[in-house]
Amino acid sequence: MSSAEVDSLLGPGWADCAAASATTDTAFLQALLDAEAALTRAQGPAGAGEAVTEAADAGRFDVPSIALRARAGGNPVIPLVADLTKAVGKEYGPYVHRGATSQDIMDTATMLVAHRALDPLLADLARTESALARLAAEHRDTPMPGRTLTQHAVPTTFGLKAAGWRSLVLDARDRVIAVRESLPVQLGGAAGTLAAFTAYGVEDATALVAAYARETGLAAPTLPWHTLRTPVADLAGCLAFTAGALGKIAADVLTLSRTEIAELAEGSGGGSSAMPHKANPVRSTLIAAAARRAPQLAATLYGSLAAEDERPAGAWHAEWEPLRELLRLAGGAARDAAELTQGLRVHADAMREHLGVTRGLIVSERLSAELAPVLGRARAKALLTELAERTHTEGRTLPEFLAKEPELRDVDLDELTDPARYTGSAAALTDRALERR
Amino acid sequence: MSSAEVDSLLGPGWADCAAASATTDTAFLQALLDAEAALTRAQGPAGAGEAVTEAADAGRFDVPSIALRARAGGNPVIPLVADLTKAVGKEYGPYVHRGATSQDIMDTATMLVAHRALDPLLADLARTESALARLAAEHRDTPMPGRTLTQHAVPTTFGLKAAGWRSLVLDARDRVIAVRESLPVQLGGAAGTLAAFTAYGVEDATALVAAYARETGLAAPTLPWHTLRTPVADLAGCLAFTAGALGKIAADVLTLSRTEIAELAEGSGGGSSAMPHKANPVRSTLIAAAARRAPQLAATLYGSLAAEDERPAGAWHAEWEPLRELLRLAGGAARDAAELTQGLRVHADAMREHLGVTRGLIVSERLSAELAPVLGRARAKALLTELAERTHTEGRTLPEFLAKEPELRDVDLDELTDPARYTGSAAALTDRALERR
Amino acid sequence: MSSAEVDSLLGPGWADCAAASATTDTAFLQALLDAEAALTRAQGPAGAGEAVTEAADAGRFDVPSIALRARAGGNPVIPLVADLTKAVGKEYGPYVHRGATSQDIMDTATMLVAHRALDPLLADLARTESALARLAAEHRDTPMPGRTLTQHAVPTTFGLKAAGWRSLVLDARDRVIAVRESLPVQLGGAAGTLAAFTAYGVEDATALVAAYARETGLAAPTLPWHTLRTPVADLAGCLAFTAGALGKIAADVLTLSRTEIAELAEGSGGGSSAMPHKANPVRSTLIAAAARRAPQLAATLYGSLAAEDERPAGAWHAEWEPLRELLRLAGGAARDAAELTQGLRVHADAMREHLGVTRGLIVSERLSAELAPVLGRARAKALLTELAERTHTEGRTLPEFLAKEPELRDVDLDELTDPARYTGSAAALTDRALERR
Amino acid sequence: MSSAEVDSLLGPGWADCAAASATTDTAFLQALLDAEAALTRAQGPAGAGEAVTEAADAGRFDVPSIALRARAGGNPVIPLVADLTKAVGKEYGPYVHRGATSQDIMDTATMLVAHRALDPLLADLARTESALARLAAEHRDTPMPGRTLTQHAVPTTFGLKAAGWRSLVLDARDRVIAVRESLPVQLGGAAGTLAAFTAYGVEDATALVAAYARETGLAAPTLPWHTLRTPVADLAGCLAFTAGALGKIAADVLTLSRTEIAELAEGSGGGSSAMPHKANPVRSTLIAAAARRAPQLAATLYGSLAAEDERPAGAWHAEWEPLRELLRLAGGAARDAAELTQGLRVHADAMREHLGVTRGLIVSERLSAELAPVLGRARAKALLTELAERTHTEGRTLPEFLAKEPELRDVDLDELTDPARYTGSAAALTDRALERR
Repeated sequence: MSSAEVDSLLGPGWADCAAASATTDTAFLQALLDAEAALTRAQGPAGAGEAVTEAADAGRFDVPSIALRARAGGNPVIPLVADLTKAVGKEYGPYVHRGATSQDIMDTATMLVAHRALDPLLADLARTESALARLAAEHRDTPMPGRTLTQHAVPTTFGLKAAGWRSLVLDARDRVIAVRESLPVQLGGAAGTLAAFTAYGVEDATALVAAYARETGLAAPTLPWHTLRTPVADLAGCLAFTAGALGKIAADVLTLSRTEIAELAEGSGGGSSAMPHKANPVRSTLIAAAARRAPQLAATLYGSLAAEDERPAGAWHAEWEPLRELLRLAGGAARDAAELTQGLRVHADAMREHLGVTRGLIVSERLSAELAPVLGRARAKALLTELAERTHTEGRTLPEFLAKEPELRDVDLDELTDPARYTGSAAALTDRALERR
Repeated sequence: MSSAEVDSLLGPGWADCAAASATTDTAFLQALLDAEAALTRAQGPAGAGEAVTEAADAGRFDVPSIALRARAGGNPVIPLVADLTKAVGKEYGPYVHRGATSQDIMDTATMLVAHRALDPLLADLARTESALARLAAEHRDTPMPGRTLTQHAVPTTFGLKAAGWRSLVLDARDRVIAVRESLPVQLGGAAGTLAAFTAYGVEDATALVAAYARETGLAAPTLPWHTLRTPVADLAGCLAFTAGALGKIAADVLTLSRTEIAELAEGSGGGSSAMPHKANPVRSTLIAAAARRAPQLAATLYGSLAAEDERPAGAWHAEWEPLRELLRLAGGAARDAAELTQGLRVHADAMREHLGVTRGLIVSERLSAELAPVLGRARAKALLTELAERTHTEGRTLPEFLAKEPELRDVDLDELTDPARYTGSAAALTDRALERR
Repeated sequence: MSSAEVDSLLGPGWADCAAASATTDTAFLQALLDAEAALTRAQGPAGAGEAVTEAADAGRFDVPSIALRARAGGNPVIPLVADLTKAVGKEYGPYVHRGATSQDIMDTATMLVAHRALDPLLADLARTESALARLAAEHRDTPMPGRTLTQHAVPTTFGLKAAGWRSLVLDARDRVIAVRESLPVQLGGAAGTLAAFTAYGVEDATALVAAYARETGLAAPTLPWHTLRTPVADLAGCLAFTAGALGKIAADVLTLSRTEIAELAEGSGGGSSAMPHKANPVRSTLIAAAARRAPQLAATLYGSLAAEDERPAGAWHAEWEPLRELLRLAGGAARDAAELTQGLRVHADAMREHLGVTRGLIVSERLSAELAPVLGRARAKALLTELAERTHTEGRTLPEFLAKEPELRDVDLDELTDPARYTGSAAALTDRALERR
Repeated sequence: MSSAEVDSLLGPGWADCAAASATTDTAFLQALLDAEAALTRAQGPAGAGEAVTEAADAGRFDVPSIALRARAGGNPVIPLVADLTKAVGKEYGPYVHRGATSQDIMDTATMLVAHRALDPLLADLARTESALARLAAEHRDTPMPGRTLTQHAVPTTFGLKAAGWRSLVLDARDRVIAVRESLPVQLGGAAGTLAAFTAYGVEDATALVAAYARETGLAAPTLPWHTLRTPVADLAGCLAFTAGALGKIAADVLTLSRTEIAELAEGSGGGSSAMPHKANPVRSTLIAAAARRAPQLAATLYGSLAAEDERPAGAWHAEWEPLRELLRLAGGAARDAAELTQGLRVHADAMREHLGVTRGLIVSERLSAELAPVLGRARAKALLTELAERTHTEGRTLPEFLAKEPELRDVDLDELTDPARYTGSAAALTDRALERR
């Protein structure tokens, strides 16, 4: 599959990625052909199944011509059936597409493409998960500032952060796997009654659906789902989730890579056309871009659930490209997330140093809690408020001020004011999260 | 809960509906209070737990005042904690909210509200499912035109259509139940490390999470999920799915209720301010409106997955109202779907009559299949093309033309051209679909 | 531009359309080259301008290679500059891209592409407008049922409907033209200060922006707009509007083409793979699909307004493909709308016939108004309610019942109950709307 | 208007804001009544106009009851007309709503509400613009790091940044004003033909539209726009634009307020429930939340352009709440932006200090440009690459290394490496941008 085939100049996030290769026009064409061949094999006669299977090679068909002729009927199956019938030849040509409707083939092909594109996506999620497990274990006890609403709050650990990222990746993986296993063939004929198959002599049309499913490797649905779009909505959900989950990682890396923060750096940052010194967090940027786009693409697919009649005039057609884009975006983001997490450079020293930026205020929550029994609640609060204020204005640290308070001479202030010793259950939570497989 | 509380003049789709009552400001306030009380009970001391639980009655708090004071810190928990602490009194006041962060309470309350709002939604889906099961069984053999891209294609049955609707409702139910059972409490403290709880003397902070979960009836999460928003994304997905699934039913009812079609009618159509004769399909209209809105609300929630740091500046705040709206829209749509399907009037005679609108062409697919062995493929095709053309132009029926063809004298044309006998596996599919519980 | 270049198998709505050809990878590459050449010409020296202009021919560059290398820095300008510099040669190579940042070129190229793609779109809107003007004039007095909430309400005319469609098309045209004329070049250098141009010896950097604008034919902006994304948001708005406006036409044609209604038919309906008799409203279907997708693509672009810093990490990158898709979808929809409206077949006889479907109830509003002075308000209302009910149940027409009422013997019932004479100001409104140019 | 009326506990961004007060249920009810009264005044007789105007006081009507009864017909106008007719009394009651359809009143009321809600929004944009003009002038020459893809790029000024923010606010203002001035009344009667008005004796129904427009203060449309939704789409566009434009400001403030950066601080940051030292950028957070939500709400409104027939079954109903939410979100964001910009604290010293974070690399672009003529292009590049590398690894500054290069002894390195002297045309651009009014 040459990358020349696809419009990828504007899509560096998914260019040159297996999930994208699995969704090119040629890949769709092959899946359409696979669907036709599987149907003929399932339906017979045997000779026809073999003949169609042999002819069903995308390389022999003219994609641009089919795309062009797709305009007349509004979908590519109609011209493809004509070309395939001709390619199969006189004897078995009449068995091509017999009893089927365009949507049977189009939907089955779409499920095949999704199934195939989710394979590399899952492999990339696995690589990501594994890199994050390593980072979480390695930095189980690396303290860093916890940040809320952009401000330092209390300390946390990078291990807990990485474990959290990993749990999102596992959530994505679980959702994608569940959907992938449920992807069904489509078979219903013109209006979903399977009537034409019977007219053509099939004895048990519902058994034909099962045979067709076996031939394709997809699941067999209870009902034709021409306008019961659960599989497409489920794909929308798990792909938007995946893009968003990876988007969380990207959002954190982007923040923590800022020049002033520099607690993280991408393994190999992207260069700049004008500034030789820059190393941009390009992988995170492209993942973030995917996370911004995926929800709206999923919305279009959820919107297509409301599909009138036995085949809708527009809702179905509106699914094709957004689903392809979602597969590409989520697939590309997973590929970039794997690269990002495998190469991520963690500057534990910077994290440690930043614990001091607030000059001790980052442990004020702890002091509030632990000085109350010593000083009384009211006095503790008054003292901390005063000292926090002085810390802000006088440019010295909270521990310095505390050390001067005679009331606190018996308190182990070193322990109490060390941010690295106020990470709570971060390590225990990390351990627990890493038990999940 | 008075309906006066909520802005519902523009929301007839969810006004006066249990799922909406479960999401008012007062309901949220009560859930916030329930969360605070559960946390104090879980954390102790016992007297404090009792005192907070007793004080935690939304009726005693001033919603508008809290809403107003929420502006300063950006969320309602901060002023609520002040009021609740005061209400609990001197002795136990200090135990209110101890160790928690606003988001712990806000997220837990949101999960409680969702849990509560999904109850009536599920009950309404059950009513809908049951009404559809009855319709599908009753009309298992009621033939009607199958329509694709707005045009008559081949016959189907209303039973199969109703069974399809039901399968979507069951898909929605299954997704909602799975999500509802997984809704977790939130507990992490300021940056998700549970550190403050330990500072306040809790021995095993992770055990506290489990106790808190038990007190609320929600699930216990592996990690604090302040910025791991799987529960919210899962709600988005299942609610958008539900609205879309019901939107499919509405789309069909709207089409089949059209004045010229009139195969279906809502039990009690809505009136018009100007035209006494009109009976509008109002339930379907309001469901359709919900289905148009839900996907974009879900998109906002999926977008909030990309949440930076330990608490994001905006992504979290952007979740609250869209989630409430989704609960209301899906809840209202489920309520309307129950009314719609329970009261739906099915005009089997109109369905039957419309099978004749194409003057026999609705069975042309069958004729193509079954006349080929009789006449030879080429002759069959030529004949049908000619007669279809004449059917269009000469205003007579296809069976009439066929009856004059000497080649077909031995063919049982009555059987072959009766649309009611070309419904394929519709009945078998309906039976199979109805086996699902 | 060969259609082989683009992934169009899933996009029959925009395949083979001038607006789509204007947005291929090659078209973008050419626009990037045009932007570079214009910048060198504006900046000098003259020899360099000529050399770069001559080299700037997309045909000489390797799109897939550039797309692939775009991954490293996250945009295609970086590798393109390398290739272009090499192509220009030693003497003038150093003047390529001098002082510019990738975004200067990328944004300018995007504006060029948009400008070029809007040309055929506007031409197609003009064709559509003209076809609709003709239809509106021709059917100024063709009565048909007005339908609200799917039900016949009161009569209207097809002329008024076509005039309304046209007014939407004119609204779209006006919005597109205004935006197209305002599309600006981008020039700011690394962080939008134009500093590098001065460092390279440009005397008046702000004058350079004006010269650059002249060279490209785009507008000159007041400020660099790297993160002031008004032009992109404006494109989003006018393209979503265009798709939606055409979507209204499609929605009406789809409804009025239904087998039972058949008041309209597309000039050449699409065929079916299985049913020889079907003529599907394919143009409307594809327009409807575009209208379902465009709003969410626009939402992504509006979302990118919130772009941090002097160049955002993700928001900018998230714009590229959605904007291209919007240009394609709106361009394709405009092309299909032109074909649709130019070929639309209007069955005035069916419209007229359907005025009788409600057996006279379609004029009940008029009777309410005009019988009140004759019978007294209360009596008129009671009588009409009773007769409407009997019209429903007894299968006769309202005029028949009215004719038997002795109180109405002096009323001109023929006039009063003729739907064709109750079209109000439809003709006057049509005339007035057609005055707009 | 009491804030108790609205569900605002989850909407701190728009609570207690004039734009929100203008969109409560009571405000909508009043607008509905204003529309009815204006129509009666326009249509006469005079006594009726006066009577309806007097009765049209929202305070006398029962909002919850109307909301509840709105369910039957799907909109609140039907029950409101019943109540208003009763309130007006026997003599003039029959003139209430005469000839109108629910949508005439509902749409007109929505335009009135929008018109009224845009007033405070525009006032807040004006306050914001004015604060930003002051900031831009004051900090015209305050240098700060320009940041791209999260990394320091080259210097810029805070004045240019503030001028850019202001230009977005002016763009928003211009778009809102243009839309506000075009908001039309709605008048068409049951199917948009104005027929009923004539039936009730109006001589020139199109003149009635103009009179109605005058009575309301809204514009007079060329055609009834029941399904020509330009006004709603235009509102969607300008409100999504406004939210996004303000979202850009918020995104920058959030970044520049980070604990490690602290170049900006909100005038009065929000507190935390647990950490006394925190001052959160709450205004920016709430604006950012609005900017995340607005695009999807606008998408729903753009989606409703595709509205079938003379009144659609769902598309219209789907507009009401999203439009209200957009008005609230944009209105609240404008209010918060005014507070934010008026109170913004600018730490010019921190900005200046951060210019040194890259130890001189922030001017590497300038050095590339200006050393080439001195050293030759190749030598300059090699030298800078080497020194940039050593700056990274050896912990000293680029100027220190440069000072040791004998080749550069005649170069004014102080000038060349001072970031504050590499702000290009920032000041000139700021001046130019401030000329716009």
